[in-house]
Amino acid sequence: MSEQAKQKNGHLVIIGGGEDRKHDMEILSRFVELSGGASARIVVITAASQIADEMWHIYDGVFGTLGVKERAHLEITSREDANSEDFVRKVGEADGIFMTGGDQKRLLALIGGTAMDAEMHNALKVRGATIGGTSAGASAMSGHMLAQGRTDLLPEKGSVSLGAGLGFLHRVVVDQHFSERQRLSRLLSVVAQNPYLQGIGIDEDTALIIERGVGIEVVGEGAVTVVDGRSMSTNVAEIKDRATPELIDVRLHLLPAGSKYALPDGQEQTGKRVPPQLLDFLENVTKRTTLS
Amino acid sequence: MSEQAKQKNGHLVIIGGGEDRKHDMEILSRFVELSGGASARIVVITAASQIADEMWHIYDGVFGTLGVKERAHLEITSREDANSEDFVRKVGEADGIFMTGGDQKRLLALIGGTAMDAEMHNALKVRGATIGGTSAGASAMSGHMLAQGRTDLLPEKGSVSLGAGLGFLHRVVVDQHFSERQRLSRLLSVVAQNPYLQGIGIDEDTALIIERGVGIEVVGEGAVTVVDGRSMSTNVAEIKDRATPELIDVRLHLLPAGSKYALPDGQEQTGKRVPPQLLDFLENVTKRTTLS
Repeated sequence: MSEQAKQKNGHLVIIGGGEDRKHDMEILSRFVELSGGASARIVVITAASQIADEMWHIYDGVFGTLGVKERAHLEITSREDANSEDFVRKVGEADGIFMTGGDQKRLLALIGGTAMDAEMHNALKVRGATIGGTSAGASAMSGHMLAQGRTDLLPEKGSVSLGAGLGFLHRVVVDQHFSERQRLSRLLSVVAQNPYLQGIGIDEDTALIIERGVGIEVVGEGAVTVVDGRSMSTNVAEIKDRATPELIDVRLHLLPAGSKYALPDGQEQTGKRVPPQLLDFLENVTKRTTLS
Repeated sequence: MSEQAKQKNGHLVIIGGGEDRKHDMEILSRFVELSGGASARIVVITAASQIADEMWHIYDGVFGTLGVKERAHLEITSREDANSEDFVRKVGEADGIFMTGGDQKRLLALIGGTAMDAEMHNALKVRGATIGGTSAGASAMSGHMLAQGRTDLLPEKGSVSLGAGLGFLHRVVVDQHFSERQRLSRLLSVVAQNPYLQGIGIDEDTALIIERGVGIEVVGEGAVTVVDGRSMSTNVAEIKDRATPELIDVRLHLLPAGSKYALPDGQEQTGKRVPPQLLDFLENVTKRTTLS
């Protein structure tokens, strides 16, 4: 483990898919930097993908270009792999852990609840490592994971199903390719039926970076949309499946790239005010949850 | 003027475009009913369209099918037409006034501020007539009119321009073909820069029906989306043109077809509760504004 990582609070780099891997590589380069720079040990988990080798080849190339020497592919094709001493040790030594795109259900089926999963929590929460994920790897980060759902023009009762995610974040659900695939109605479907989850929609080539206990930042080309239904009034419990619910007073926040917010404790450093209506979201996602 | 219309409060039937004109004709049939039924006198204003004759032909057919005998085309090709005694008289005798789609800027350039415009206000506010409008005819109804604007993935400062509309409604801006053309970001662009306007997005084959002093109803196949930025926090004043603003705490309401709300005074009749967070919107759009 590099010296830098030892002093860190732990970061999540949650990417909406389609991050630039050829030109400025802004987001992946931030992931490397947060992991400790060129001296960081970075492992890549391709388990979400059915073309794991190709994925590894791509990210091996990018992280190599960004100067990282110690790169490893955790090629997981079974839960046995994810419980194996070798892979758990590699995660235990990593400064940066990156999860590629693919299918978040596949990823969870392979690594959810394994020794490697536990070691990833240890890496983030105890050692202050950086965990990055793009597309499916982004959706997998929350405790309640958007598993699948149609994207219709309007929200519909019962059109989205949740699954158990990795749980680096709680009380949120993450969707990706958000503006590009017009997924607001899908995220509203989730929030309508699960009002205690705040919806986080992340655009392509855009990342929500969370530093535990400190603050958040939006990096890249698009924006992060937050949908909060906790104060809403809805008839979703009374309508039938596939009907569109009435939703009154959903709170929506749009955080474009460049947005940066620190918890009030850390504000002296940044001088940036946190809009009071965002504070609760900020406190939730930066919360230093413990190993369970 | 039919007996029915005399007792009415005045209705607006604001249609998001693409209303069914061949099958159940739910929305247009409601427009006819609210105008007084088969005995109503209905005039059609095609001034928004450059294919006015075709438009008249279509709606003449529909209203005929719906049993209306007294139908007239107000074929306006100049402001002189819209100030002419003949057309003003026809509006003055109409129970239902319908504005077709086309370009709302063209519509306003031809009839905005004319004697016919004044007579339409008189029809609605004094005689309790019904005014319907679809697509461009819907956007034209508010005082501040969404004149034109790009539909980008994200809201952008300066991407939408407003114009002066007909002013049957105030403190709102109406957009149409809303879900189908993914126009939320465009409506958020308006609200970001004009926070005192509440954005109303109406889906295709969907109408927001407003009865002055009484309540509102959503009819058709889709939904009406209301976007309220009055409590929001934003940096839009500080960012440069074409940049995406930070928007914190925009309130969003989704009212699917079938939604119906009466002002508290009228609630005994309907028994339907109005969610408190919607009351302010309801009071605003049903307000009995006077002839100015």
